[in-house]
Amino acid sequence: MGGVPGVPRGKVAILGGGVVGLNAAKVAVGMGAEVTILDVNAHRLAYLDDIFGGRAATLYATDANLSRVLAESDLVIGAVLIPGAQAPKLVRREHLKTMKRASVIVDVAVDQGGCVETTKATTHDDPVYVVDGVVHYGVANMPGAVALTSTLALTSTTLAYGLKIADLGLEAALKLDPALKAGLNVYQGQVTYADVARAHGLVYVAADGVI
Amino acid sequence: MGGVPGVPRGKVAILGGGVVGLNAAKVAVGMGAEVTILDVNAHRLAYLDDIFGGRAATLYATDANLSRVLAESDLVIGAVLIPGAQAPKLVRREHLKTMKRASVIVDVAVDQGGCVETTKATTHDDPVYVVDGVVHYGVANMPGAVALTSTLALTSTTLAYGLKIADLGLEAALKLDPALKAGLNVYQGQVTYADVARAHGLVYVAADGVI
Amino acid sequence: MGGVPGVPRGKVAILGGGVVGLNAAKVAVGMGAEVTILDVNAHRLAYLDDIFGGRAATLYATDANLSRVLAESDLVIGAVLIPGAQAPKLVRREHLKTMKRASVIVDVAVDQGGCVETTKATTHDDPVYVVDGVVHYGVANMPGAVALTSTLALTSTTLAYGLKIADLGLEAALKLDPALKAGLNVYQGQVTYADVARAHGLVYVAADGVI
Amino acid sequence: MGGVPGVPRGKVAILGGGVVGLNAAKVAVGMGAEVTILDVNAHRLAYLDDIFGGRAATLYATDANLSRVLAESDLVIGAVLIPGAQAPKLVRREHLKTMKRASVIVDVAVDQGGCVETTKATTHDDPVYVVDGVVHYGVANMPGAVALTSTLALTSTTLAYGLKIADLGLEAALKLDPALKAGLNVYQGQVTYADVARAHGLVYVAADGVI
Amino acid sequence: MGGVPGVPRGKVAILGGGVVGLNAAKVAVGMGAEVTILDVNAHRLAYLDDIFGGRAATLYATDANLSRVLAESDLVIGAVLIPGAQAPKLVRREHLKTMKRASVIVDVAVDQGGCVETTKATTHDDPVYVVDGVVHYGVANMPGAVALTSTLALTSTTLAYGLKIADLGLEAALKLDPALKAGLNVYQGQVTYADVARAHGLVYVAADGVI
Amino acid sequence: MGGVPGVPRGKVAILGGGVVGLNAAKVAVGMGAEVTILDVNAHRLAYLDDIFGGRAATLYATDANLSRVLAESDLVIGAVLIPGAQAPKLVRREHLKTMKRASVIVDVAVDQGGCVETTKATTHDDPVYVVDGVVHYGVANMPGAVALTSTLALTSTTLAYGLKIADLGLEAALKLDPALKAGLNVYQGQVTYADVARAHGLVYVAADGVI
Repeated sequence: MGGVPGVPRGKVAILGGGVVGLNAAKVAVGMGAEVTILDVNAHRLAYLDDIFGGRAATLYATDANLSRVLAESDLVIGAVLIPGAQAPKLVRREHLKTMKRASVIVDVAVDQGGCVETTKATTHDDPVYVVDGVVHYGVANMPGAVALTSTLALTSTTLAYGLKIADLGLEAALKLDPALKAGLNVYQGQVTYADVARAHGLVYVAADGVI
Repeated sequence: MGGVPGVPRGKVAILGGGVVGLNAAKVAVGMGAEVTILDVNAHRLAYLDDIFGGRAATLYATDANLSRVLAESDLVIGAVLIPGAQAPKLVRREHLKTMKRASVIVDVAVDQGGCVETTKATTHDDPVYVVDGVVHYGVANMPGAVALTSTLALTSTTLAYGLKIADLGLEAALKLDPALKAGLNVYQGQVTYADVARAHGLVYVAADGVI
Repeated sequence: MGGVPGVPRGKVAILGGGVVGLNAAKVAVGMGAEVTILDVNAHRLAYLDDIFGGRAATLYATDANLSRVLAESDLVIGAVLIPGAQAPKLVRREHLKTMKRASVIVDVAVDQGGCVETTKATTHDDPVYVVDGVVHYGVANMPGAVALTSTLALTSTTLAYGLKIADLGLEAALKLDPALKAGLNVYQGQVTYADVARAHGLVYVAADGVI
Repeated sequence: MGGVPGVPRGKVAILGGGVVGLNAAKVAVGMGAEVTILDVNAHRLAYLDDIFGGRAATLYATDANLSRVLAESDLVIGAVLIPGAQAPKLVRREHLKTMKRASVIVDVAVDQGGCVETTKATTHDDPVYVVDGVVHYGVANMPGAVALTSTLALTSTTLAYGLKIADLGLEAALKLDPALKAGLNVYQGQVTYADVARAHGLVYVAADGVI
Repeated sequence: MGGVPGVPRGKVAILGGGVVGLNAAKVAVGMGAEVTILDVNAHRLAYLDDIFGGRAATLYATDANLSRVLAESDLVIGAVLIPGAQAPKLVRREHLKTMKRASVIVDVAVDQGGCVETTKATTHDDPVYVVDGVVHYGVANMPGAVALTSTLALTSTTLAYGLKIADLGLEAALKLDPALKAGLNVYQGQVTYADVARAHGLVYVAADGVI
Repeated sequence: MGGVPGVPRGKVAILGGGVVGLNAAKVAVGMGAEVTILDVNAHRLAYLDDIFGGRAATLYATDANLSRVLAESDLVIGAVLIPGAQAPKLVRREHLKTMKRASVIVDVAVDQGGCVETTKATTHDDPVYVVDGVVHYGVANMPGAVALTSTLALTSTTLAYGLKIADLGLEAALKLDPALKAGLNVYQGQVTYADVARAHGLVYVAADGVI
């Protein structure tokens, strides 16, 4: 992706500068690619600019900027995720026609419907398909490809919650720890997470009301 | 390879700090891996230390250092190449037994016999095989996988020589340009490159004597 | 600590990625050491990863990770501090037996009891002692060794509070400035800081109730 | 030039990666611009890639690459200098028509005729003019604008030569110091520097023959 | 500003480490200058230290530090801005006498009265004047000099607010979006922003009371 | 040395930008100090500027520059070494009077007489003494303090020579390997290294003439 000295580098667009986008940008920058990160949040763009120090470009995710960047990119990484909710469809079918032949889209948001209109979930055995000359990679549960690292990452962040529930019982743990309560999705058959309820057309009930 | 924050990074050993090893190190460092470059040349190690600024470790390629590093690595890149000659076998069969299960060896020197004793040339269609639990990748003509970049790189460096030969004719060009003459391998059936002659058991004739 | 090109670098483990740990990591990374920072806070680990950009490894401070890192380190810096409270004993006596001979532990938390079980307070005149082959450095009031820098740092951050108290009188200043009130430890013989009260087995009284 | 977070950065092309081009690239990269350095020398491109570490792109100075880069750039810096000789005309009149309106060309080679076909020498008082919508800056003796820095730089590098001539006399100094002799342009009315002789259509005489 | 290798670099002092000061520091550091950023906020100084990684010095903005730094600087950038309020006069007339002859002050705070006592607003046509041997640059509306970039930056951050007002009407938008309400300066002739009211000697009315 | 955020950093001057000076600079820069490297070689200064990228200042080692830098420094590292010859006395007695009280001079050239007029060899047991208020550190054989690292570094670079001598015998090895011959100091009682002969007032005999 970074090419070799004297030869043009690959251009990478990263849609969304959150945790996933930031990590993707670190790898792409590290490999020597020419990276542009798009986001709607001015504070996040400033922070990304601070830590990349000019090695990655940041860009407001307006429609005009998105269209221009997509047309120039060799690799597009869709990393727009809203916890518990459907990802918005940023890249639309008509964008594909403007993209380079054999460019690649990786839609990391595929587990929540994808942020690319033409994304469909694929598998590690048959990971890619082509639409309008653009290669799509939409493997569901991508972290599963690096099982060891993703297991360690997941368990390291969640272990403390598990221990707390084991020690105190579920209800006491939920009452004591606001972070745990904020993550509660379903309790005794009732959906206690607003975005999940909305995404599935179910009734939302505040966690405080049912525990 | 770089893991995520809070999870151990992959360890990469790069055997040989020349052009190939340096580029491999840039990518591995860029991806966040913990990289060690081994070489026998103190000046080259100092230069690598200067430009990586602590982001990659450098190590004299002694037997003791090599054995210790191989046993700890997740990925080993064999990048020891001697122009026109057989690559030396740095990694030997007995080293494999000390390596981690499912660690990976990529032998970039495969086109010149490989710098790993257990390397054999493979193809892009069936690129890997396993010896003693260690995955081997030994695709001949690796640059062929990134056809565009490698073509541009190769033609950019060689074009000037081609133009000179086209302009002046072969003999005049060889006489005028010492770099071109130094690269002459065979002339009218005679081997004019010492390492190539030695590697194939043929008679070596100095270029100056036959042109 | 950073060795020279071609020679292995020293390995440094930093327990705790707060202000003290971050500064220790900057120096150790700057000197060329191979640095691992352990912390329990995923957000802090991500921030450390952002600003070190791969020049320092970050690791969740689980028991398994801690044990593995201690056994490999040449220098361990204990930098786990909880304001006003006893530091937790992360490094235990049995860890020492697994550590390298002549490796070094610096316990910066010594002023609050230390985060290493075998730490005891020492002085600048006789700063070190050895337990199980591991050198311990536990000088109380470490900043005192760089008197000028630490005085400037301390007075620069505290001067504004002092001026406010001088201008307004203590009670008015406490009422006006929540940061000042939050730092109040004792008021008219009553302990107004929860962790201090707990550490000393005294009764805690909220500042608001006594001013 | 570097824009602000979220807004596209300026694109800068630097023609020639020698001392002048490298320093220009450092400043442009430092200001946050997206920089491409073109050169014909593969070793120099590799070195530039080593020290910029991905913060500047390097590109072989082929006609195709040059045309593509000129059409995309906001600022072009002509830094192709051949000591004592006329600079080659890399940027030609027809290139200007493909460039962005109000883009800028700075021709540092102006003191040796310029490496841009449409360059003419200007002065600090009236430094710029426009051709085909492209702003040209071709102030002769550019270093004169930063008189203090350029005087210190020039005298620091030349002082040792001056002292040697003062100590030994001109002829003895020339014989003793090959670097000094290599820089001799004219001696007793005869041109002793090949490129200067060629550029002015004069007879060249080797320094060794006349001293 | 960065000089050339072997020649002293310019010294730049930046007063205020907020958004403006941080961007000024990035450019000055990038150009190779020796940069010192002064601020009163210890957390901000620590963050600046984290992201500059030693390439810029940070300093508490005490009177003593300010005086010492001003006397050594070649360029001073005044970037102390308090939204809606008069900037404090950090650099006073008597400081100028201690500064180097022909050093330069750029007062970015000029649109709010300037943070330098001797600042007066100038124009792009006649941008500078000299007081006590120190060059002052105080162009009002500085961003106007880079019209394209500043327009894109401003509209990118404000567009979302404009669309919300257009969609919902002003009152509904203000009620729904606390960030929008926090930025309301005047509503139906009443000043709803405390610092603005204070700066102009007008009566302040909370936004909640009048919408 | 690097201070903490908001407090002035230590200033370090490094006399000589060779191997020793470069490594000293890396450590000092890494610890956050404000570093200036002085050297007489313009090419070396440019290379140092390339790899430090603005994190260290470079300065021509003129008398004027040296005097100015000494007067400002907290730590001076003398790293001017000429193989086999006496080091030149760069820092003279009268310089000390201009230096800060309690500043420190470390003279790495002590094993060759020192590059500081007031240097005398000291020992690890009693390493420092004070002249004119300036602390001097002149421990002979400094690398002996880090015995493991310096042994590995020395043996790694010299092992190949030793093996060659063991394999071929001394005379054959000297004839085959020009690097080995260039390092020959004494052969059968005759001094074969010009600078050593000059430093000790002995007769110099070319190696070629005696082997």
